[in-house]
Amino acid sequence: MAEPSITAQLLTPDAVHAAYALIQPYIHRTPLLTCQTLNTIASTPQSAESLVGTSFEGQTPANPKFRFFFKCENYQRIGAFKARGAFHALLRLIAERGEEEVKRRGVITHSSGNHAQALALAASTLHVPAYIVMPSISTPSKIAGTRSHGAEVIFSGSTSTEREAVVAEIQAKTDAILVPPYDHFDIICGQGTSALEMEEQYRALVADKPHLSVHASGAQALDAVITPVGGGGLNAGVATFFSGKPTRVFGAEPSFEGADDCCRGLEAGQRVEAVKTLTIADGLRTPVGVLNWEVISDRSKVAGVFAVTEDQIKAAMRLVLERMKVVVEPSAVVGLAVCLFNEEFRRLVEKEAGPDGWDMGIVFSGGNTTVEAIGKLFA
Amino acid sequence: MAEPSITAQLLTPDAVHAAYALIQPYIHRTPLLTCQTLNTIASTPQSAESLVGTSFEGQTPANPKFRFFFKCENYQRIGAFKARGAFHALLRLIAERGEEEVKRRGVITHSSGNHAQALALAASTLHVPAYIVMPSISTPSKIAGTRSHGAEVIFSGSTSTEREAVVAEIQAKTDAILVPPYDHFDIICGQGTSALEMEEQYRALVADKPHLSVHASGAQALDAVITPVGGGGLNAGVATFFSGKPTRVFGAEPSFEGADDCCRGLEAGQRVEAVKTLTIADGLRTPVGVLNWEVISDRSKVAGVFAVTEDQIKAAMRLVLERMKVVVEPSAVVGLAVCLFNEEFRRLVEKEAGPDGWDMGIVFSGGNTTVEAIGKLFA
Repeated sequence: MAEPSITAQLLTPDAVHAAYALIQPYIHRTPLLTCQTLNTIASTPQSAESLVGTSFEGQTPANPKFRFFFKCENYQRIGAFKARGAFHALLRLIAERGEEEVKRRGVITHSSGNHAQALALAASTLHVPAYIVMPSISTPSKIAGTRSHGAEVIFSGSTSTEREAVVAEIQAKTDAILVPPYDHFDIICGQGTSALEMEEQYRALVADKPHLSVHASGAQALDAVITPVGGGGLNAGVATFFSGKPTRVFGAEPSFEGADDCCRGLEAGQRVEAVKTLTIADGLRTPVGVLNWEVISDRSKVAGVFAVTEDQIKAAMRLVLERMKVVVEPSAVVGLAVCLFNEEFRRLVEKEAGPDGWDMGIVFSGGNTTVEAIGKLFA
Repeated sequence: MAEPSITAQLLTPDAVHAAYALIQPYIHRTPLLTCQTLNTIASTPQSAESLVGTSFEGQTPANPKFRFFFKCENYQRIGAFKARGAFHALLRLIAERGEEEVKRRGVITHSSGNHAQALALAASTLHVPAYIVMPSISTPSKIAGTRSHGAEVIFSGSTSTEREAVVAEIQAKTDAILVPPYDHFDIICGQGTSALEMEEQYRALVADKPHLSVHASGAQALDAVITPVGGGGLNAGVATFFSGKPTRVFGAEPSFEGADDCCRGLEAGQRVEAVKTLTIADGLRTPVGVLNWEVISDRSKVAGVFAVTEDQIKAAMRLVLERMKVVVEPSAVVGLAVCLFNEEFRRLVEKEAGPDGWDMGIVFSGGNTTVEAIGKLFA
């Protein structure tokens, strides 16, 4: 592996603490929830039939033990963790360039999803003009959501080339400063604050209710954490916070139509630069960013990335909605789906954790879906 | 109005406190949540168009102010408040008749819904045999849920006559003791414990975060509480807890196909004894029970009952799922729907509360639905 870049070297737990100090007044401290039913299901071996057609067919199903701690970023402002990175990036811009310059020039991004709404909210809160380039095929509710925070929405075609052309055009007119959605130092540190809260909340929770932990003697650290990997900002941020600590970090991806670019890149020893997939986990259709790849491909920071099928994502989403009664979007549950259904991961946990099992943090990344979309998924 | 029965006279706040002492080890203290978005929507007048076709057409829409406090019984054990009443009824049976007798005879009920699962859970927890008579057309997930708690499920036809015949038959064989779903002193007191928790949690919450209350000076009591009314056990229990206190209690019903039997009964001055409706709020298809009617028709206990349409229930459910990210069943949101859409109720609040508005408790009664059912509702 190549020497880490200077920027990657600056990605430290301290940088995440600094980000938290800046954004704390603007974001929600989202709840950390537990669910006995999901612990029981995940701690039961899969049926032999469910392994038919996989490379594990005919083998004894793994028997890992889990106690889950769900970090519910679906209850974050704008319904997703993206609010953390957007507030952080904008507050840092103001700190570095001065309020006058940032307010005069404004900020711009291209996104069809949660980052668009997050930057629009941060910009309106801090009284900065925002230009959001969205594909004209974006769902009306997302366009309305972005506009409701006072941002100017500009439409483009849906390929990256088309989107970037429109961004360049608006920048030429307005001199607006680009705030990228994931591949950026400040965004990574902002997203990493979810891990900082998760660790604090986990310690408080198991101090108060020791039976929630697998560790009878009381635990100070989660054994492991898993997050979705799309552009990789969340996973890189969480891995940055836990670097040098005992908590292992894992990533989770959909496998549909090659959306598992990070898994494939790790196998090939090289970042996959382009992805074209229509996975139901629509927040995870992008390839991992360059800086994020540096973090995620560093085995001392991220212990592994695992993929799940569309059916496994749907099964996990059904369990969260019907059993936990919590609304999540498909992208949010890929980590849980890995714990429930990825037999390679389940073997790893059984082997590494032994009969005690793991206290496992799972980041639910967002909850922006509609009743119609839920209906279509399960029609 | 007739003199209250002896049983009704015994329905006091103290009886609810006594119930709480008994059931507390067995139930969840469910969270009390707030949602700024729903406060804002409810505190905005409805559009003039939305009143077209109603008796308020052409009039100025009411402008009440609400701060909601949602008591989330969808997070209760078995996913609904029914666990409170079932545990209480069974613990009281054991206290009154002795463990030996109750374990020998067992308990029986007829229910296609949440009461069936609640009694099955209470019985398995307390090692009492349970016989649950369910219509053979019940959804497979509810039958499986009831069986998963170790209860014996016996099928019947779906009319009350058919169900009661099967109950009588099983009782003749087993001598099992009937635990009715709602029209019973112990059930009412059990359900009332949700109000006791709600008041405690409200006080703690506004002491910690005074901005959540409309009352700048700090508040000791919710101004009002609204719950769904089906058989009436929950509403009567909540009204029992708040009787003699400053908190006003209201009820909410669906209006579809005459499901608003309680509203109609109050207007006619006489309980409506039979209802045949297929409202989407499937927990509210039953007429109000005799004892519950005594409580609910007592204006010193329940200040009024209001009805909403199927479309209004769906609109409220959409807001709770999409904005609060909380999974509720249609029956759970009729109280919220009244606050959002019933113009008669909104006028009452505007008039009684004035510009300060009300701190308003809303009981979300349950969350037992499926992704398929959500899909069908909004198809």
